[in-house]
Amino acid sequence: MLEGIEISEGEREDFLGFKIKPKFIAYPKDEEEVVRIVNYARETKTPIVVWGAGTSLSGHLMCEGCILVDVSKYMNKILEINDIDWYARVQPGVNLGYLQRKLEEQGFYFPPDPGSYLLCTVGGAVANGAGGMRGVKYGSISEWVLALKVVLPNGKIVKIGEPLRKNRAGYDLVHLFVGSEGTLGIITEIWLRIIPKPKRKTYTVLAYMNSLEDTAEVIKELRKRKIMPELAEYMDLEVIKALNKHLNANLKESEGGALLITVEEDYLEDLKSVLGEREYKIAEGEEAEKLRYIRSQSAVALRAESKHLFAEDIIVPVSKLVEAIKRLKEIERKYNIKMPVMAHIGDGNLHPNIMLNDLSKAEAIFEEVARLAIELDGSITAEHGIGVQKAKLLAEQIVKHNGEDVLKIMKGIKDLIDPYDIMNPNKYVELAYKLWEKK
Amino acid sequence: MLEGIEISEGEREDFLGFKIKPKFIAYPKDEEEVVRIVNYARETKTPIVVWGAGTSLSGHLMCEGCILVDVSKYMNKILEINDIDWYARVQPGVNLGYLQRKLEEQGFYFPPDPGSYLLCTVGGAVANGAGGMRGVKYGSISEWVLALKVVLPNGKIVKIGEPLRKNRAGYDLVHLFVGSEGTLGIITEIWLRIIPKPKRKTYTVLAYMNSLEDTAEVIKELRKRKIMPELAEYMDLEVIKALNKHLNANLKESEGGALLITVEEDYLEDLKSVLGEREYKIAEGEEAEKLRYIRSQSAVALRAESKHLFAEDIIVPVSKLVEAIKRLKEIERKYNIKMPVMAHIGDGNLHPNIMLNDLSKAEAIFEEVARLAIELDGSITAEHGIGVQKAKLLAEQIVKHNGEDVLKIMKGIKDLIDPYDIMNPNKYVELAYKLWEKK
Repeated sequence: MLEGIEISEGEREDFLGFKIKPKFIAYPKDEEEVVRIVNYARETKTPIVVWGAGTSLSGHLMCEGCILVDVSKYMNKILEINDIDWYARVQPGVNLGYLQRKLEEQGFYFPPDPGSYLLCTVGGAVANGAGGMRGVKYGSISEWVLALKVVLPNGKIVKIGEPLRKNRAGYDLVHLFVGSEGTLGIITEIWLRIIPKPKRKTYTVLAYMNSLEDTAEVIKELRKRKIMPELAEYMDLEVIKALNKHLNANLKESEGGALLITVEEDYLEDLKSVLGEREYKIAEGEEAEKLRYIRSQSAVALRAESKHLFAEDIIVPVSKLVEAIKRLKEIERKYNIKMPVMAHIGDGNLHPNIMLNDLSKAEAIFEEVARLAIELDGSITAEHGIGVQKAKLLAEQIVKHNGEDVLKIMKGIKDLIDPYDIMNPNKYVELAYKLWEKK
Repeated sequence: MLEGIEISEGEREDFLGFKIKPKFIAYPKDEEEVVRIVNYARETKTPIVVWGAGTSLSGHLMCEGCILVDVSKYMNKILEINDIDWYARVQPGVNLGYLQRKLEEQGFYFPPDPGSYLLCTVGGAVANGAGGMRGVKYGSISEWVLALKVVLPNGKIVKIGEPLRKNRAGYDLVHLFVGSEGTLGIITEIWLRIIPKPKRKTYTVLAYMNSLEDTAEVIKELRKRKIMPELAEYMDLEVIKALNKHLNANLKESEGGALLITVEEDYLEDLKSVLGEREYKIAEGEEAEKLRYIRSQSAVALRAESKHLFAEDIIVPVSKLVEAIKRLKEIERKYNIKMPVMAHIGDGNLHPNIMLNDLSKAEAIFEEVARLAIELDGSITAEHGIGVQKAKLLAEQIVKHNGEDVLKIMKGIKDLIDPYDIMNPNKYVELAYKLWEKK
């Protein structure tokens, strides 16, 4: 049944160390081979997990006895960059950073830039609904997907959506599949919306903060004065220390950490006026790129500092950043741990990194941070997704913020599209529902 | 059961003349009254149709014996404009143009501007997934909805999504409800994403075209040179004549019609170079606003010219505009009718207006235009939606472009969320599915 399809044995680990122990790994060459793998999985009731680059941060890929479908080996081509219709059509296994480079060579721009953009695949970013530093202005990848080709659990190849700027033909299933974490089907082709590379000159300001509250106040002021940044990132003192140590970043080790804010030229004066007497420097061109690169390596630098690292990913309303940051500090003290924070702070997305030497308190801390987001009208995840790690918390949040019926509808959609329960089963919405039902 | 809820009798007509003959009209004052109306509808198996301003263009509201829930009378408030978290929270019955004015007074911007923006309600625009002139740059309203409160068919109040810039907590149901045409629940509250009013100076260029092909070539060239317009509109000769006659628009009656293109200042030279020797004038400020207003009144002007008017709404890839326009002219000749075209041409969205004195050929022409879009890899609707008018064509397009399974999934979602079949039943996806199944 799988005749001619490249197969291997082997175990893998994702970026955070979750174990993938598949029955076998399959390397499909095309859609037709994906269909045969799906049919095999359905007929043998074997779970399917899709592997792009393994940069998952929430245990999306963890499995035992699954078929691991590795799309990075063959299904990794840019199929088309259309300079009239402004889309890129790609296979799921293409590297995101590579695609961005190719687009920029042609004068285009594809904003979504998750921290893993140099490593991750487009398929993985789409399946996970990835965010990134430019999210404050350009949103998550969800806003950039026009259409998908998908092999459904029943083995049928379908197209979801159309590669058009606007389309009202039926319920919007595109955004349902984006961020579905491999639980609804296997993505085999992706149409991404692309735009012209912005013309305007930008400036990147590195500003040192006096305290955490100071940081939150600056962000609030930016919003009040209606300054739209291209990116607005935050690194606290511990993050700065790790960057200085492992990347020779040469940042000032300021008590209140640092903000990295990029604005188009006509917002520069406004930004300077918000910063006032605070210490800052203004960078352009390569120097600005370097600062952005340094910020993007924060997770890597922190990982080198700790035996166990849990990258939290919460988002709160910008108006509640002060409170969120204060409460995170309380959690740090309560458990006597280090929890450096970097953040896409412009949109309220905080990444507290729980550093631990022993794991006994890991779950308790992890959950306390997530529950803080729920309490402050935020969300337990802005861009890392749910996987297995946050399924219980997902149920909590949905029931508290949205209503039980929303969880039921989500589970109903999983059952509707994957009645065989073969697509990345027992995770995400399905697991959340089970845990909630058991209660 | 409906005690205390304001009720009246009466019949209504939507903008295109589709008849609404309800059992009664209900005017809920709040969410709790909406719940009671939904419960009544479910228990008495009475269909519910929600009325905002009746600007529907596809027969979404048509019904006989339904409960017409008019949200425009009481549920029409702006509840909050949050200048830190950058959202507006509104009730469904608020007028879109009014909301935009209020936001602009505070320095904010809400781009979606369907042709009916001065008349329509936000709830209607969201339920229909409305587009507009600014869609070429800012997309349809779907990209601007953060969260919704909805009364589900089972009478439960839920919140869909979160008023956050990024959120990965579960499957994305927000975009499923946007554009669901009242078939999944009643929207009672809406969180819209708002952005700062753009700072940059814009110029509006009114350019006269030599021929239809000339127009399409200009658009293609704009895309090739990567000029991102704020809007890129088209009016053909017949539209111009109607505007001159009914609005004293004072436009040149040029054979090839006219383009109305707004760009930010740093694209002006590029635009001029694309236009070359063609005749054009450049407007700013109030004069530019007036041109935009004139364009927005095209439908009204054309309506005055014809006994029956069918506003078609197709979208094709920009690369296929030349062919689409040529083929539309062939249809005009074939049926010996007038079919003036106005268009959000920057994104490929054409509005051929079928003008008829007798209706005998109406359906045939209407379907031929829509099938042209299907044939050219476009869509039968970019922003007007399906309603009853395009249900058959929706089934055709989905089966041809996307696959039967996509239609089945859409129908499955309707059944999942509205198993009682009370929410605007027998239209849209449900009707499309029935018509396809019968075949």
